[in-house]
Amino acid sequence: MSGILYGIGVGPGDPELITLKAVRIMADAPVLAYPATDEGESMVRAIAGPHMPDGRVEIAVRTPIGRGPAAAEAVYAGYAAEIAGHLDAGRDVAFLCQGDPFVYGSFIYLHGRLAAAYTTRVVPGVSSLGAVAAAAGVPLVRGYEVLNVVPAPLAEAELEARLGAGDAVAVVKVGRHLAKVRRVIQHLGLTHSAVYVERATMKDERVLPLARVDAASAPYFSMIVVPGNGVRSG
Amino acid sequence: MSGILYGIGVGPGDPELITLKAVRIMADAPVLAYPATDEGESMVRAIAGPHMPDGRVEIAVRTPIGRGPAAAEAVYAGYAAEIAGHLDAGRDVAFLCQGDPFVYGSFIYLHGRLAAAYTTRVVPGVSSLGAVAAAAGVPLVRGYEVLNVVPAPLAEAELEARLGAGDAVAVVKVGRHLAKVRRVIQHLGLTHSAVYVERATMKDERVLPLARVDAASAPYFSMIVVPGNGVRSG
Repeated sequence: MSGILYGIGVGPGDPELITLKAVRIMADAPVLAYPATDEGESMVRAIAGPHMPDGRVEIAVRTPIGRGPAAAEAVYAGYAAEIAGHLDAGRDVAFLCQGDPFVYGSFIYLHGRLAAAYTTRVVPGVSSLGAVAAAAGVPLVRGYEVLNVVPAPLAEAELEARLGAGDAVAVVKVGRHLAKVRRVIQHLGLTHSAVYVERATMKDERVLPLARVDAASAPYFSMIVVPGNGVRSG
Repeated sequence: MSGILYGIGVGPGDPELITLKAVRIMADAPVLAYPATDEGESMVRAIAGPHMPDGRVEIAVRTPIGRGPAAAEAVYAGYAAEIAGHLDAGRDVAFLCQGDPFVYGSFIYLHGRLAAAYTTRVVPGVSSLGAVAAAAGVPLVRGYEVLNVVPAPLAEAELEARLGAGDAVAVVKVGRHLAKVRRVIQHLGLTHSAVYVERATMKDERVLPLARVDAASAPYFSMIVVPGNGVRSG
């Protein structure tokens, strides 16, 4: 019998924003894997750490975070083989990822390689969308409003078209694209309601009006939200 | 000292998909409020019930679920006054809602009325977006793809424009709008990859290819997802 592959969302950053189900599955799985930087540091390990039992096999998946999907795909091919080895030996593997596994989650890279051959289960987690809105203290989307979630690395013209087409928008993966995103939001006349949030729900969370952010300082895990204005809500 | 108003996401349906933080705050709050139907039945109460201590004041907020935001606004005005009474008396109030409080959450109706006068904190929860993708077994959005979240009650032409503008789309609040949404998705040539999910993560969860759903049977809490095709991911 092969092991089961779990994709586990550990939430946005606060270790208390993990689900009971994620904690239970982590307690039972003999192998725990999670994304890490090239140097081996792992934000996901830091979030899940308080809930991870000792004595498990741990696999730090060293990925080029923020260097684009193509670079990540190449790295995950190797780790998929390592994880398949554990599954073949009958050991369940829980792959932990920040936020939700199927909403921009790094689990998707493994799922595409392993789901056809192994039993796979996904445990949804608290995504950064709700966490960022909670941090900003503003409702993101309500009633009959449309929410567009747009990655910042898109080209400027496309970014403008996609952002302009939503009642509420969330720009993800901001990082070094901040100056470009800010130009687009300014051009669309949305700066007054745009909020910048980095490291939502973590100890060093920062929340600022977009106009006041230093463009040089944004980490990869930062977001900008322009909440819906409630016009469609009543 | 006034009490604190909490907006608590209890997740999509499975009581195990609640966060540790939500459980802790429910354990401490003397007043627990949640949306219910006109008849007093509450899906949120059913989700959170296993984690709610005995002996708390409970307020079932009887709202016209599925009859539109304007109807809900009118109802919440009365309940906001009742909740303000508890806050004025120094009692914390936790308002529970399905999914995430600030992503189409019913907490938004209270927030608009009470956040200016009372200390307000939001605990994000697992939203139905990730839960529906997990139930369907398909990654919803990855890499540099754009995700559009679109409420089904929109007019058909607008629905088509909004759905056509995303790489991945999620249609929320489907219910009696299923036939219309299916026409639009057919017209956009997306039927082959569209998945219908009702009551995601609950005991009576149903997952079907969109083409095979009986249009007369969809409950209000049903969704349709058209996952991104991965073209922007590599």
